[in-house]
Amino acid sequence: MKHRFRAVVAGATGYSGRDLIRMLLRHPDLELVGTFASSSGDAVKLTEIHPQLTGYTDLDCRPFNEEAVKGLKPDLIFLATPNEFSHEIVPKMIETGAVVVDLSGSFRLRDARLYEQYYGFEHTSPGLLERAIYGLTEFVADELPGAKLIANPGCYPTSILIPMNPLMRAGIIDESQPVICDSKSGVTGAGKTANSTTHFVEVSESFRAYNVFKHRHTPEIAQGLGLENRTDNLIFTPHLLPINRGILSTIYIRLTGGVRRTDLLDCWRESFKSSKFVRIFDGSQLPEIKFTANTPFCDIGCTVDEATGQAIIVSSIDNLLKGAASQALQNANLALGVDEGAGII
Amino acid sequence: MKHRFRAVVAGATGYSGRDLIRMLLRHPDLELVGTFASSSGDAVKLTEIHPQLTGYTDLDCRPFNEEAVKGLKPDLIFLATPNEFSHEIVPKMIETGAVVVDLSGSFRLRDARLYEQYYGFEHTSPGLLERAIYGLTEFVADELPGAKLIANPGCYPTSILIPMNPLMRAGIIDESQPVICDSKSGVTGAGKTANSTTHFVEVSESFRAYNVFKHRHTPEIAQGLGLENRTDNLIFTPHLLPINRGILSTIYIRLTGGVRRTDLLDCWRESFKSSKFVRIFDGSQLPEIKFTANTPFCDIGCTVDEATGQAIIVSSIDNLLKGAASQALQNANLALGVDEGAGII
Amino acid sequence: MKHRFRAVVAGATGYSGRDLIRMLLRHPDLELVGTFASSSGDAVKLTEIHPQLTGYTDLDCRPFNEEAVKGLKPDLIFLATPNEFSHEIVPKMIETGAVVVDLSGSFRLRDARLYEQYYGFEHTSPGLLERAIYGLTEFVADELPGAKLIANPGCYPTSILIPMNPLMRAGIIDESQPVICDSKSGVTGAGKTANSTTHFVEVSESFRAYNVFKHRHTPEIAQGLGLENRTDNLIFTPHLLPINRGILSTIYIRLTGGVRRTDLLDCWRESFKSSKFVRIFDGSQLPEIKFTANTPFCDIGCTVDEATGQAIIVSSIDNLLKGAASQALQNANLALGVDEGAGII
Amino acid sequence: MKHRFRAVVAGATGYSGRDLIRMLLRHPDLELVGTFASSSGDAVKLTEIHPQLTGYTDLDCRPFNEEAVKGLKPDLIFLATPNEFSHEIVPKMIETGAVVVDLSGSFRLRDARLYEQYYGFEHTSPGLLERAIYGLTEFVADELPGAKLIANPGCYPTSILIPMNPLMRAGIIDESQPVICDSKSGVTGAGKTANSTTHFVEVSESFRAYNVFKHRHTPEIAQGLGLENRTDNLIFTPHLLPINRGILSTIYIRLTGGVRRTDLLDCWRESFKSSKFVRIFDGSQLPEIKFTANTPFCDIGCTVDEATGQAIIVSSIDNLLKGAASQALQNANLALGVDEGAGII
Repeated sequence: MKHRFRAVVAGATGYSGRDLIRMLLRHPDLELVGTFASSSGDAVKLTEIHPQLTGYTDLDCRPFNEEAVKGLKPDLIFLATPNEFSHEIVPKMIETGAVVVDLSGSFRLRDARLYEQYYGFEHTSPGLLERAIYGLTEFVADELPGAKLIANPGCYPTSILIPMNPLMRAGIIDESQPVICDSKSGVTGAGKTANSTTHFVEVSESFRAYNVFKHRHTPEIAQGLGLENRTDNLIFTPHLLPINRGILSTIYIRLTGGVRRTDLLDCWRESFKSSKFVRIFDGSQLPEIKFTANTPFCDIGCTVDEATGQAIIVSSIDNLLKGAASQALQNANLALGVDEGAGII
Repeated sequence: MKHRFRAVVAGATGYSGRDLIRMLLRHPDLELVGTFASSSGDAVKLTEIHPQLTGYTDLDCRPFNEEAVKGLKPDLIFLATPNEFSHEIVPKMIETGAVVVDLSGSFRLRDARLYEQYYGFEHTSPGLLERAIYGLTEFVADELPGAKLIANPGCYPTSILIPMNPLMRAGIIDESQPVICDSKSGVTGAGKTANSTTHFVEVSESFRAYNVFKHRHTPEIAQGLGLENRTDNLIFTPHLLPINRGILSTIYIRLTGGVRRTDLLDCWRESFKSSKFVRIFDGSQLPEIKFTANTPFCDIGCTVDEATGQAIIVSSIDNLLKGAASQALQNANLALGVDEGAGII
Repeated sequence: MKHRFRAVVAGATGYSGRDLIRMLLRHPDLELVGTFASSSGDAVKLTEIHPQLTGYTDLDCRPFNEEAVKGLKPDLIFLATPNEFSHEIVPKMIETGAVVVDLSGSFRLRDARLYEQYYGFEHTSPGLLERAIYGLTEFVADELPGAKLIANPGCYPTSILIPMNPLMRAGIIDESQPVICDSKSGVTGAGKTANSTTHFVEVSESFRAYNVFKHRHTPEIAQGLGLENRTDNLIFTPHLLPINRGILSTIYIRLTGGVRRTDLLDCWRESFKSSKFVRIFDGSQLPEIKFTANTPFCDIGCTVDEATGQAIIVSSIDNLLKGAASQALQNANLALGVDEGAGII
Repeated sequence: MKHRFRAVVAGATGYSGRDLIRMLLRHPDLELVGTFASSSGDAVKLTEIHPQLTGYTDLDCRPFNEEAVKGLKPDLIFLATPNEFSHEIVPKMIETGAVVVDLSGSFRLRDARLYEQYYGFEHTSPGLLERAIYGLTEFVADELPGAKLIANPGCYPTSILIPMNPLMRAGIIDESQPVICDSKSGVTGAGKTANSTTHFVEVSESFRAYNVFKHRHTPEIAQGLGLENRTDNLIFTPHLLPINRGILSTIYIRLTGGVRRTDLLDCWRESFKSSKFVRIFDGSQLPEIKFTANTPFCDIGCTVDEATGQAIIVSSIDNLLKGAASQALQNANLALGVDEGAGII
């Protein structure tokens, strides 16, 4: 029988955890050997928390416990846990020798000082910040084999960095104008916590901007774009859509003289020629959330007003999949040396 | 200048309270002189709680305080407060001499013993239960002038009793088959409390039955239909719709021999000939939630299979208006002797 | 290399066709060799019609043409086509020798005379009606191997017959009261045709009953329940939910004396002991649409008022999967002798 | 009895027409004397087209006919009709001597040449384009009394021009960066026509940009901002939200040196000091669609990054009210010399 790597999921009660578990349960090369909640309490059947999983698994979800995790001898540990929780537990999980994929924001920023401002806690593992691989899979596929700590990117940054990174590197963006990212996300992005901002009546038939100029994904996007020191050159505005899942980002840039739409498309084609999960819209249609919802893809497209050099980039992902769980699995697959798409497609 | 009655709203923070306030602010005969929250805390502008009301009022919403209410010398007190709160405060409010309209369930059931089973508390004012008028306006218009305590009906019961009461009284329902009420409500019916059952992601793109065989509106419907002692003859199943506001009830009855659709329509026409807020659908179209949402109407219609005597009654209301705030105002208007539709249409 | 059966999908432009194609593209034992539209026009890329499929396939979708289908030498033909289209084309497709799975309603009713009343056309292949297997997989698994024509059940009937068939056969239903099926479906059930009943604004924030007493799934349900000659004993009322996909049916029955909830659960456990795609809810939770949406399961549960013998059965399916595409694939898998769940789970 | 002006609505079958009629039916100074459809066919009861209006009116909706309109001797004619229809009929309606308020786009642009490019027809009444008042009420209140032709603004332009006009005039916008308007609208903005872009399943749980760089509201916004000749300085991107009604615009501008948030708020307070229907959000909360939906208000707010001079303006309106019907009524009220808010609040 085929050898299968042993995988553990901590943070199994949330939406990302659930979707990750669903993929792991049909993964040909990984075996899900245990799931944990970041909260305390009794062990319960996973299917009590997520009735959707009935028929797929009989596993329990236990309160997180280091020894219990170690006892499972995992090859792979996914942490879909709150920021503070991951911050504390990652150093201990690394000691197990397993590959650790952290879906929280706690190991994404190289500059430890930003954590106090944006996350509200002082980062105590700056050494790990340096070692962690920022797992925007399409750009670090070479670094992933053998990686031990992977900081899985945020959902909004994924939607913005995938189309923008190749363009930034190509030097075709006129820096006299900031990169303006107007992003819209479904409510699963706000997590499972019930409060007035996730109450159905407050969200349905409405739409709003939030955390304007201060969302914690801003420094992550800046870092990804190489604009850490040019924060006047990046504006990121998240909005809340009355849908369950999906992000669409509308990105406004000015191109340097003479650059045309076909140049952007060529740049993307070259960058993503071996990428399974980036789809380039090169016809008249632009990405829409319904095309990526419940899929592991990032769709990208653009419109260019060649007279003025203004370009509008539109990208879309499922925030729980390419923005969390399926990207985590892409990263894990490559770290372990199995097919990038295993369990995903 | 025209004399205007002085009105107070307690429970101003909820959805029913908000909609009631909005109507009071344009009422020609009533003046809103104060609003209160059932919770403690500081006074805040109503418009901080309900930004929708900006431009209509500068009133504060204060924590509830008996003396403060009395100090306002109200002619009319609306309680859009939790059941336990109304239960405790109604006796004191009645002492003020004001007309009290209670939107909670605490004074709706004549049989005090049912409160323990369905509401979880022992009722301590059985005398008031006898005196309270159950304010299903269309059937008690004669009793309302001069009334001092009005128990405003529940939303589901309103949707069911308006079409069913005339049919029950007409004796055209075959009792060998129970009255089966399959009702569906929007999420405002669950109130403003944020929990897993009102979380956007748990409601959107889903649908479910809840409190099957044990919803507290069951005894209220039974009382209204005169089936208190025939509970085997009533089935009520509430469901949660992924919409903000509105109820649709599909009611299954068997008619006695020879009764035809036209008999039902005639019965309704006679019963509601002087009702402003009941609309009878006598063509091929049946009521739909979108026709009553944001309106004070109860729409009723029916389809009859004359071969078998099976009839399906369909009714619709806005749960926050005819199911709460606008019916409360109909009741208050009639109690005070002003036009039934004032402030409503 | 593994032998794979050659599959063709006609009616590839609709929602059921799309979901079926998505499953076929990852099926280990079937190869999708061609797709067709029931409408005329030019061949176009499938991904132009369904951008969701980008990255999965490069197939064209061609206007339907008998010779073109035959030229593909299919082992299996799925018809996700309109009723009249299937009615005409099934006899010709059967001649190819391929297994034909028809997702339309045209071969579901054994009594040819009902087609004129419910479908508006005279059925010209009564012989095929007799030979067709009504593919409610869980009840005909033994008959499927080697079957040549499978009439795939309707979505509403699937949600009703799966829980009800075992109870009908067990003889525990009191026939003095009709079986009342109050069903609610998402909008994909209405198909892709744009009209006032599928317009976003007419559906969103609303809810309505439709085709009361005359929906064409009524005779199909009656046939499945063995009530063809007792139509006074079945009431079926479909409603339109403001969601994309999913059906929930609330079914009201009276049990014969002494029958308890545990008897219903036992009856189901026995009936579905070898069924992969029926999940029995035997705890306090009832099925909800979100548990089955995007899954191939039928969830069933019940609440019984043992004092009165009244039972409420609640079932849920995804109308495009267990109500169409995944059930079609279950049927095809069994007909061809491969694993029932292949390509589905 | 009070004198009431006689009003007619053409284009009564659409969503704007319906909402306008609802307001007219409770207007103290206007009497709705007739309604017309822009399509041909038989006269039908308005309540057949809009069951929501049942109980408010018994009027017929007749196919449009010039003589029939004239026969009603109207003081006021609202045209909520398609662009081409208004273009043709406005000159004739003006001859009646009535005040004409055209809700279409056909008389909004001063430059007749733009009609061919953006609306697809050659404008044949350039003289009327010059005479028409562009009815963004808050800025033309002085010009409206006695006006004979009012071009009611588009929904998107209303949401953008109300907050932006005062800022443009104040000269506090740094023109080195374009004004970027990222706007999002509910589906009523797309009208009542059923097609794939308004199909529930194509809209729900999705989100998309459309008409990028070429929406016909672009020249209208440019004209309003005084940027007709600086089209490189304006970017407008409309998006479709899965909601019924409401627009939210997120507008990105760079401020000239030293300008602060308080300057923007002061500028708005001065500009709108006598405006009934503009609400300035000067606290920490920004406008959201739910605050303006079903209201006649335009809500405006802003956030400024004072370090970089980047400002984000957020505005919201109900596209059918302030973006169409209630603004039309504001304009009509002022043209006829009655209270601006009559029938609206």
